[in-house]
Amino acid sequence: MNNDFINIEKLISVFSTDFEKTLISFLPKALFFSDKLDKAMYYVVKVGGKRLRPLILSEISSILGIKKENSDRVAAGIEFIHCYSLVHDDLPAMDDDDLRRGHPTCHIKFDEATAILVGDAFQSLAFEIISHEKTHENSEVRCNLINELAKSSGAEGMVGGQMLDLEAEKKTLTLEKIFQLQRLKTGELFRFSCIAPCILAEKYEELQVFENFSSKLGLAFQIKDDLLDVEGNILEVGKKTGKDHKQGKETLVSLLGIENAKKKSKDLIEESIKIIEPFGEKAKNLIDLANFIISRNK
Amino acid sequence: MNNDFINIEKLISVFSTDFEKTLISFLPKALFFSDKLDKAMYYVVKVGGKRLRPLILSEISSILGIKKENSDRVAAGIEFIHCYSLVHDDLPAMDDDDLRRGHPTCHIKFDEATAILVGDAFQSLAFEIISHEKTHENSEVRCNLINELAKSSGAEGMVGGQMLDLEAEKKTLTLEKIFQLQRLKTGELFRFSCIAPCILAEKYEELQVFENFSSKLGLAFQIKDDLLDVEGNILEVGKKTGKDHKQGKETLVSLLGIENAKKKSKDLIEESIKIIEPFGEKAKNLIDLANFIISRNK
Repeated sequence: MNNDFINIEKLISVFSTDFEKTLISFLPKALFFSDKLDKAMYYVVKVGGKRLRPLILSEISSILGIKKENSDRVAAGIEFIHCYSLVHDDLPAMDDDDLRRGHPTCHIKFDEATAILVGDAFQSLAFEIISHEKTHENSEVRCNLINELAKSSGAEGMVGGQMLDLEAEKKTLTLEKIFQLQRLKTGELFRFSCIAPCILAEKYEELQVFENFSSKLGLAFQIKDDLLDVEGNILEVGKKTGKDHKQGKETLVSLLGIENAKKKSKDLIEESIKIIEPFGEKAKNLIDLANFIISRNK
Repeated sequence: MNNDFINIEKLISVFSTDFEKTLISFLPKALFFSDKLDKAMYYVVKVGGKRLRPLILSEISSILGIKKENSDRVAAGIEFIHCYSLVHDDLPAMDDDDLRRGHPTCHIKFDEATAILVGDAFQSLAFEIISHEKTHENSEVRCNLINELAKSSGAEGMVGGQMLDLEAEKKTLTLEKIFQLQRLKTGELFRFSCIAPCILAEKYEELQVFENFSSKLGLAFQIKDDLLDVEGNILEVGKKTGKDHKQGKETLVSLLGIENAKKKSKDLIEESIKIIEPFGEKAKNLIDLANFIISRNK
């Protein structure tokens, strides 16, 4: 394991510990006579995760000179959208997962109705946070962020991708269709993480650069996720592995083959790094993060 | 049946036919290789409803001199939030309803996974529409609308109320607690419908007036809903009736008694009308609408 890898694991760990406090600060407090919803939202946040999307957003925000108090709010917004999508995806009617990051999923720990409502509440919370004047003094910027996040997460973004993914279990898909599916399901939120700092900085000329970066990074991330599903160990990955294969579902890996998939993800990461190298020393963490995405074992 | 009642039924019918076209214009078009999500969203919109929240919003917007092209977008936003809440509430893990307005509910017509995703997509769509510059030239106004709608629909609003309602099936509640529950579950979206036009008009001094109006109207609406559950006929109401009673669930009606509940809702409507009477002739439709809320049989 080289030094860069140790550094990035430390960065992720320090960031996620700090960022968890940010997330918790935005959660609703117990209201009236029931605190079940609040407890369930808190549980989902505490189960944690690598907080990759907020970290990418924060690193690009640093490059562009955005204040942490502003980028943290948008990062919380995207993480709450990500949290809601995981809670809903884990439901019995969807992917039916009992385990997430080694812990019982929300509907197992609480119940299905609570999990549905937790997801719904996380989504509203994301937009509530970003619309607030503390996110940016310019309300035009806040509206742009909300519009992009809503598109990225809705029917023509993440939710549309999840629908295609469910349909994919019953169809034979070409590689091109799987690329489309993954661009929506995973790519769109990665895209938002990468362009949100440009919107916050009102540097619209950088938007295309970071959009390109995100499309390569997002696809590499998805290929690695599929590889972990094939090769990963349940204890390390923290959720059921081999699931796609068991369902006879085609993935980028089943169509490309393991070796080609590894090569493709490596190429994509190299291309993504080339895009951000011009930012020099300031992009170091982001480059390490890109390398980490295909080296991780969970 | 008096003339006012005939007029308001006509107004509701004309408005809902016209407004359905507005809603459909905002729906996503089939993407890539699956149009199941789009078809399911279209189905939910077509199954319809009285569009009471958009109509109230539109009527108050007329009183305050807002252009239809602006108020229509906010009205679509609140209706999509309402649609998502109905689709999710009907799920087996929640209220488990097979029928809505005389038609199969979304998870019956399609499947549970689709219904979960349809709800999620409707929620994003609401915020996407309102954040767009076409909603209002002043982005501060758009951000205020989004912030209010997110709070009204989230954990400290509608979703929180729905959670309390599910919990209520297992508890004995006081009348005060049921008032709190209903204020969140139904009242918050009514409140948004009534204050959104004040935000659009940037007439913040009228906000308190319409907030007062909404709190009385929302509660009267809920009492009438509970009365319909006790006294209504499944063919007229279009969904299962007698459900709350069967579940041993306490409602405003079970605690107040039928006669007191009828009186309470009538008093609330009279009080709500007094609040808007100063607007004179311009408030006529809104007054008829308030009266309709407790006279309706579905």
